[in-house]
Amino acid sequence: MPREVDVAIIGAGSAGLFALSQVRKQTDSYVLIDGGELGTTCARVGCMPSKVLIQVAEDFHRRKIFEREGIEGAVALKVDIPEAMEHVQDLRDTFVDRTLGVTDHMDEGHLLEANARFISEDTLEVNGEEIRAKKIIIATGSTPVIPAAWRSCAEHVLTTDEIFELEDLPTSMAVVGLGSIGLEIGQALSRLGVAVTGIDQIETVAKLADSVVSDLAIEAIGKEFPLWLGAVANLEMQDGAVKVSCGDQSVVVEKVLASLGRRPNLDKLGLENLSIDLDDRGIPVYDPHTMQVGNSSIFIAGDVNADRALLHEAGHEGRVAGYNAVHENIAAFKRKTFLGITFCDPNIATVGAQLDELNEAEIAIGEIQFGPVGRALIMAKNRGVLRVYANKADGRLLGAAMACVKAENLAHLLAWSIQQGLSVQDLLKMPFYHPVIEEALQAALYNALGQLDVKEELVELEKL
Amino acid sequence: MPREVDVAIIGAGSAGLFALSQVRKQTDSYVLIDGGELGTTCARVGCMPSKVLIQVAEDFHRRKIFEREGIEGAVALKVDIPEAMEHVQDLRDTFVDRTLGVTDHMDEGHLLEANARFISEDTLEVNGEEIRAKKIIIATGSTPVIPAAWRSCAEHVLTTDEIFELEDLPTSMAVVGLGSIGLEIGQALSRLGVAVTGIDQIETVAKLADSVVSDLAIEAIGKEFPLWLGAVANLEMQDGAVKVSCGDQSVVVEKVLASLGRRPNLDKLGLENLSIDLDDRGIPVYDPHTMQVGNSSIFIAGDVNADRALLHEAGHEGRVAGYNAVHENIAAFKRKTFLGITFCDPNIATVGAQLDELNEAEIAIGEIQFGPVGRALIMAKNRGVLRVYANKADGRLLGAAMACVKAENLAHLLAWSIQQGLSVQDLLKMPFYHPVIEEALQAALYNALGQLDVKEELVELEKL
Repeated sequence: MPREVDVAIIGAGSAGLFALSQVRKQTDSYVLIDGGELGTTCARVGCMPSKVLIQVAEDFHRRKIFEREGIEGAVALKVDIPEAMEHVQDLRDTFVDRTLGVTDHMDEGHLLEANARFISEDTLEVNGEEIRAKKIIIATGSTPVIPAAWRSCAEHVLTTDEIFELEDLPTSMAVVGLGSIGLEIGQALSRLGVAVTGIDQIETVAKLADSVVSDLAIEAIGKEFPLWLGAVANLEMQDGAVKVSCGDQSVVVEKVLASLGRRPNLDKLGLENLSIDLDDRGIPVYDPHTMQVGNSSIFIAGDVNADRALLHEAGHEGRVAGYNAVHENIAAFKRKTFLGITFCDPNIATVGAQLDELNEAEIAIGEIQFGPVGRALIMAKNRGVLRVYANKADGRLLGAAMACVKAENLAHLLAWSIQQGLSVQDLLKMPFYHPVIEEALQAALYNALGQLDVKEELVELEKL
Repeated sequence: MPREVDVAIIGAGSAGLFALSQVRKQTDSYVLIDGGELGTTCARVGCMPSKVLIQVAEDFHRRKIFEREGIEGAVALKVDIPEAMEHVQDLRDTFVDRTLGVTDHMDEGHLLEANARFISEDTLEVNGEEIRAKKIIIATGSTPVIPAAWRSCAEHVLTTDEIFELEDLPTSMAVVGLGSIGLEIGQALSRLGVAVTGIDQIETVAKLADSVVSDLAIEAIGKEFPLWLGAVANLEMQDGAVKVSCGDQSVVVEKVLASLGRRPNLDKLGLENLSIDLDDRGIPVYDPHTMQVGNSSIFIAGDVNADRALLHEAGHEGRVAGYNAVHENIAAFKRKTFLGITFCDPNIATVGAQLDELNEAEIAIGEIQFGPVGRALIMAKNRGVLRVYANKADGRLLGAAMACVKAENLAHLLAWSIQQGLSVQDLLKMPFYHPVIEEALQAALYNALGQLDVKEELVELEKL
């Protein structure tokens, strides 16, 4: 007789733990199954250690504006890399410990530290044992991609799984893949003294679809370290180092960071034993509002579904999957307005719909270049651009993209506004303090206002 | 025959210039009258130079966390004060020049650089000339208060009118008055090496009505320089310096900064020649939604009305006054949700209704202490608290007060939400990225949610 539970959650990462929080409200009959290292991708090798590294690099980089401010002695500042890495690891451990708080208190009956494999839609094999579950949640996360062609250089290739573990940093590095992870880590390492070359096969960074924003980001970040865009990187060993070629350029480096994306952890789950539909990437077809896989008793949440691989979305998806796993009727939940942030300098953020999803003839694009923005000038962070996309007919905000100081904060204002269906005109009635970076958003909104089909005097809109 | 115009604006500061922008849309028959130095209080001696000084001080202060990050050599950093002050003045001049852009292009018929005085409700005397105006806008701003009792020490007393002009800073200073200006400048000077003593006769800072927030701010800032609260400062000369006594404490300082507030510039306007009502402070009684003084043809906007002496409010009031001065029917305009920010570290911000305006029995107070907030910990800025006030019955947000990192940004999210009448539950449906300071607000909102009379499962609220 297999063991029987109401719910089995495969994966104790962020999505799995959020699912667990919902499941526990309704039943004690559950198992959480994880055969890897506990502590979540976010805390162990993702959001958290990268932000610590970025903070150290930013604080060190800031010395470059000291002279204009009358602060002397910047040239004598040095980073002790092993000390800096230890700081990264110390804080990382603090954050990992917090996530372990949940699993630390779970008994052996609820937490199974092993891999799970589907035998059938309602039965898993875990460590030789069969577990039958009324509902099963797949939340197995993802793994960094390393091209098979790089195998000969494997010893010199790092991913985020390894980089935060280093006691010292290489002197030179190629960062291949300039999405959020590559840009963040590449810039941080460059600022800490590593000779970084950034490479991506496409002509943009951080997946930006707006070339005005992308061009500015590439120009600003490209001043700190070379960015080679538009050609695939090829690796070969050369005298114990790696020669990285890209188009007609090449560089010999000590190490290569593979930041080419992450692959869903699905291959060992035994999906072939299920009668569920897979998409062309091999990912179970699911409803993003219910997280249900087809009409099955299986749910899928977090990075493993390869959509919106972000902590806050994993949390949302986990909650929805967990809720639906313990309620009779499957409920559909609203998705949040898209919000993506790359914590490089300038910050890059995208909110809501992007240019490649919009019909440019139907939208007004409100733009502000940060050059003269007062507060940005004071902060010496006035290389930036922010673009808001609004429906030309009525001013409703649809999306935004930006590469600028404090984009992480401006993006929240915009995401919250878009989620509420607000218009350019609505936002211009809000208070914008002075002198703050939010005034740049105000300027972009005024710029959009002038392009709308509706010609409204702003002051009129504030009449009681 | 007196000269006749449609509109006379007295004061070419922020409020006056915003009024002008509205007036110009309807008529060319106007005069802008200003007998002082042009360039706005904000740009010359207010928001802008103070933010530059704060930025330099913050960048220098940041060296204190270098050691934990592995950055060596912080002890050798020094500030060259004359260089730093020159930087403040250079940027200040840039900002002043921008505001002069408007008046630089005005001819002598439109810009009168002289003082104005009311002879009657529709007639001003300017430089011996009479000007009759259908509508008159008072936008004369304010002046720092210096107690009469300090006259014997006058040579050692500075205000914001003088401090940004200094070529060097004093070695010691008492900052009397710990509202926004005193706190901002006091902390900045302290960080730049001036031995600062902060003094206020009341037991709070930055006008905080919430003692939890106030206590934290006082404790955090009080670690950088002494704060003497709750007794009036008395000044007397002693051996060429100033002895400042406060309760049973005293200190001898080179200079005193009077940051006790600002007095409306009304005394030379000849208000005694008008039949308008004045309040008990001598300020014309006006409607804050129309900016009209009584039923007269006079409007009053900006710092001179002693309400919300903030740039963005002066701008709003100026626009409203200007609009109403050139339209037949007086229109009432919505006021913006209150938003006040003190740019000290931690930032202090108040939004909407404050505790002393609320009935504590009817509200839920959602609180977050920043100690464990991930991003704040990474930034080494995790000394902070944020409190949101919500209607207990339905969760509607009423106000907030905070002393924490990035309060300036969080306050915008909150002000915009309050202005829209959103609830705690509404906000918790919004995206909160990770790891960002906005997550602290999320935690405070969850804390408030648990105290509401309505017991709603958050996840349920997101159902489609």
